[in-house]
Amino acid sequence: MNINPDKAAENLDKLRELNPLVHNITNFVVMNYTANALLAIGASPVMAHSVDEVEEMVQLAGALVLNIGTLTNDWIESMIKAAQKANEAGIPVILDPVGSGATKLRTKSAKKILQSVSISVVRGNASEILSLKDEKSTTRGVDSAHSVDDAEQSAKEMANELGTVLAVTGPVDIITDGISTISVHNGHPMMGRVTGTGCTASAICGAFLAVDINPLSAASTALSVFGLCGELAAKKAKSPGSYSIALIDALFDITAKDCKSNCKIRNESK
Amino acid sequence: MNINPDKAAENLDKLRELNPLVHNITNFVVMNYTANALLAIGASPVMAHSVDEVEEMVQLAGALVLNIGTLTNDWIESMIKAAQKANEAGIPVILDPVGSGATKLRTKSAKKILQSVSISVVRGNASEILSLKDEKSTTRGVDSAHSVDDAEQSAKEMANELGTVLAVTGPVDIITDGISTISVHNGHPMMGRVTGTGCTASAICGAFLAVDINPLSAASTALSVFGLCGELAAKKAKSPGSYSIALIDALFDITAKDCKSNCKIRNESK
Amino acid sequence: MNINPDKAAENLDKLRELNPLVHNITNFVVMNYTANALLAIGASPVMAHSVDEVEEMVQLAGALVLNIGTLTNDWIESMIKAAQKANEAGIPVILDPVGSGATKLRTKSAKKILQSVSISVVRGNASEILSLKDEKSTTRGVDSAHSVDDAEQSAKEMANELGTVLAVTGPVDIITDGISTISVHNGHPMMGRVTGTGCTASAICGAFLAVDINPLSAASTALSVFGLCGELAAKKAKSPGSYSIALIDALFDITAKDCKSNCKIRNESK
Repeated sequence: MNINPDKAAENLDKLRELNPLVHNITNFVVMNYTANALLAIGASPVMAHSVDEVEEMVQLAGALVLNIGTLTNDWIESMIKAAQKANEAGIPVILDPVGSGATKLRTKSAKKILQSVSISVVRGNASEILSLKDEKSTTRGVDSAHSVDDAEQSAKEMANELGTVLAVTGPVDIITDGISTISVHNGHPMMGRVTGTGCTASAICGAFLAVDINPLSAASTALSVFGLCGELAAKKAKSPGSYSIALIDALFDITAKDCKSNCKIRNESK
Repeated sequence: MNINPDKAAENLDKLRELNPLVHNITNFVVMNYTANALLAIGASPVMAHSVDEVEEMVQLAGALVLNIGTLTNDWIESMIKAAQKANEAGIPVILDPVGSGATKLRTKSAKKILQSVSISVVRGNASEILSLKDEKSTTRGVDSAHSVDDAEQSAKEMANELGTVLAVTGPVDIITDGISTISVHNGHPMMGRVTGTGCTASAICGAFLAVDINPLSAASTALSVFGLCGELAAKKAKSPGSYSIALIDALFDITAKDCKSNCKIRNESK
Repeated sequence: MNINPDKAAENLDKLRELNPLVHNITNFVVMNYTANALLAIGASPVMAHSVDEVEEMVQLAGALVLNIGTLTNDWIESMIKAAQKANEAGIPVILDPVGSGATKLRTKSAKKILQSVSISVVRGNASEILSLKDEKSTTRGVDSAHSVDDAEQSAKEMANELGTVLAVTGPVDIITDGISTISVHNGHPMMGRVTGTGCTASAICGAFLAVDINPLSAASTALSVFGLCGELAAKKAKSPGSYSIALIDALFDITAKDCKSNCKIRNESK
């Protein structure tokens, strides 16, 4: 399998051609930004969380994104029901365990989802990913208290145990299925100054999974393309308000050629 | 009745003079954008959905906007209670049946609202409007799968049956009370790349209804002015992040003179 | 105690050095904007409202911000539980009584919070603050129907009765602990055309309280710095869409030197 800039370019083109519906059950803080990001890159977002409609809605979608920020218990039921239906229909599911490790509710809920349904990709920061393995890991609110390096070994073990792809994002992103590990060297520090860029990274992974059946390839190329958009935005804006807007613009403006030239994706030796 | 660019200009001026309170019970994705749009054009938005306060809040308002995106069952109860109180007090009510046709919950809820209370204007895309007539119409998430032309005849029939104005928006907007039909030829394709522009169109209809007692005239002029703002924004921004901001700016910057010169409102023969 | 531009500069520097976590239980309309504002100025925001996690989350935080916009009853329980835990742990709590005076639910809830827990700072517009003293005061949706002058005497009395700092914001902000009263002469009218600037002012007060133990000093300097950012943004943008973005940029760009030169904080004689 070749996971490289050409594959990123191919996925981007396919996304824009197929315009897949991405069903998000996500947190209140980022709903608007995530929807705009998905629209900008070429997907069609829908946000729906009622237990009375998620099973129906997800069947229209090319991917389901579960995000546990601003969580309450009733949302967990909706997430699991939607994901079960997605599993039955062969629709890929992404989990973003926002704030896992910060509170028992978040950690337990993320683990419950992982035990209840089949997840294609889990994307989180190092603390969030570590908390899924180890009750004792702590997350500072929604910010990581650990480096990506700390989480790499655990991610590989968890990927094997759970049979899912783990994507640990930070200055360098590590994406692993337990056998192969990819590192992505795109992104910009200013992304950390805009709320919801992590959540948006997960949603973009969802959009790529809707057009690329291989979770390792879909997540790696999605994170590389999104990181590259972060770099392009930094050329337009130096402060976080205008940067957040420039990032949406970049998701719309980025071309397959940009990806071929500037996506930095490395296949790591084991 | 003359529904024309001069009327659009008159309504815009009146809106800015009277600064009506617009009560929104709307979805989580668009709350912030809608509030900013209403503030920019000269209305005063309030978002309140608790069943314990909506009846009191709506009585302070010049219009009530109901929007069923990100719906759960408890919100329907609030919407109906608020609308009943609005009906009693003679306050106009707008319904935006977001995603009706995509799930049974949405379709049923939109129909239940229409059967329970008196609605002045229903604004939706073609699929949403068709779904209100015909269970079999389908909506792709929150996007239309039908053209405005498909919906025109149904809209006229429904307007007659329900005694409400139907506004079907798309590249051309059709607004009908079943007897007279208006078409609006403003707008810009980039509006479809910003989440919540449909919802915002409905909220702007609410603001215009607060100052223009005729629902056909209020909705037609509102959609023309909002579409013209979309055209003005396209002169400032080419990508959807900066476009979304330019659209809010345009709602603030647009003048009565702009409306007189560039609103494109046609009275259709039956 | 010296509450002056130098103290504002000192607090801003300390905020950026310590990067305190600010826990917000706030309304849906402003969650995203508030989070971005806190990130921009140098704090670390977390939004969490579930009764199952707020007590745990607040203990990680340097301040807790309670905001009753888009209120429902279940949120009140979460707010009180979180604030009780904050009180036990010595973490300062800010209350923003959004829309108090507009509906009984809002007024009662604000009063219930004030009676149940210890609040360091209450920030609101004149109508909201008056409503806390007097059932008969009315608020127009979420907008003030009274001037700051109207509220000043009541604020002083309430500060004494409740043992909290009252901050009444408007063209001039009045901040009082009942003994000393500070006036802040920063800000820009365009701030009133962006939704959530009042809520954001409260959140910034929270961030300053996390680094300045004196509530009168923290709230006064926070409001002055935020108002100054509003002035700086007005130099960059004339319309409310671009202004809202320029305001986030200003929160990031503002320096201690800007504060020393341009914060306008006056110690009023009693």
